[in-house]
Amino acid sequence: MEELKKSFLEHIAEATKSVLSMMAGLDVKKDDVFISNEDKVRGDITGVIGLSNDKVKGSIAISFPEEVGKTIVANMLSISPDEITEEDLKDGIGEITNMVAGDFNNRIGNIFKLSLPSVITGKGHLVSLFNNSAPVLFKFLLEDKPFYLLSTFEEK
Amino acid sequence: MEELKKSFLEHIAEATKSVLSMMAGLDVKKDDVFISNEDKVRGDITGVIGLSNDKVKGSIAISFPEEVGKTIVANMLSISPDEITEEDLKDGIGEITNMVAGDFNNRIGNIFKLSLPSVITGKGHLVSLFNNSAPVLFKFLLEDKPFYLLSTFEEK
Repeated sequence: MEELKKSFLEHIAEATKSVLSMMAGLDVKKDDVFISNEDKVRGDITGVIGLSNDKVKGSIAISFPEEVGKTIVANMLSISPDEITEEDLKDGIGEITNMVAGDFNNRIGNIFKLSLPSVITGKGHLVSLFNNSAPVLFKFLLEDKPFYLLSTFEEK
Repeated sequence: MEELKKSFLEHIAEATKSVLSMMAGLDVKKDDVFISNEDKVRGDITGVIGLSNDKVKGSIAISFPEEVGKTIVANMLSISPDEITEEDLKDGIGEITNMVAGDFNNRIGNIFKLSLPSVITGKGHLVSLFNNSAPVLFKFLLEDKPFYLLSTFEEK
């Protein structure tokens, strides 16, 4: 599991960068990805998705400050951030979450089944992992503004 | 899928009632379960878990007002609601979420793989489903106070 995890990290980071580039034309540079072992993070809008197979179960939560979420969705829809509705934001972040998990799963040989994403909105909510021994928190910088991805995988 | 869904609903309600009774000694009565097709709900603390297999993917989010969440976790731990820490609350709701999904899965023959739950805290956050055609919102009354379970399943 430890070896697997190291390759997971790289692939999650690559998937996130690739989806943002492809869907929103936004680039996260290699030097703008930071990894820590924190198990919680605050955000304004968060997409949560589960991944599992016979041996391993996990989750990915991608959490954005409202401004960063709006920038991404505005770019996806080719409109101005001011025009983004609550519904646009929720759908856009749900789609990004789905695609990041799907792209990550592709990169590791589609070993997981994905769940449907849920989206949480609310100024400064806290996202935490449950009962977790090996949390990983990615901090990505997008045009100098941070957003976060919190993930964990556990053998059954 | 429609037939399957109807039996899902019943089993989700039963699993929720059973886990609360077993873990916290709290009873939701049969007449205190309401089902609608809303696709979002507000809460103060929410546990989210994914379920999937080769054909179907879904999610379950259980969302509580702070007071109800604290009552449940206080009963689980046999302490007073005033003594509950943020960490207790988060862990307790994560465990309830995990057990409701697990008990539901048991009742339908363990057809799904479960993901790890995530827990979101933040006064009045909004939980929504992504891109969903068939949302189901359960409203449960626990000692006359409501809490909610938002779920959906979709064929791949």
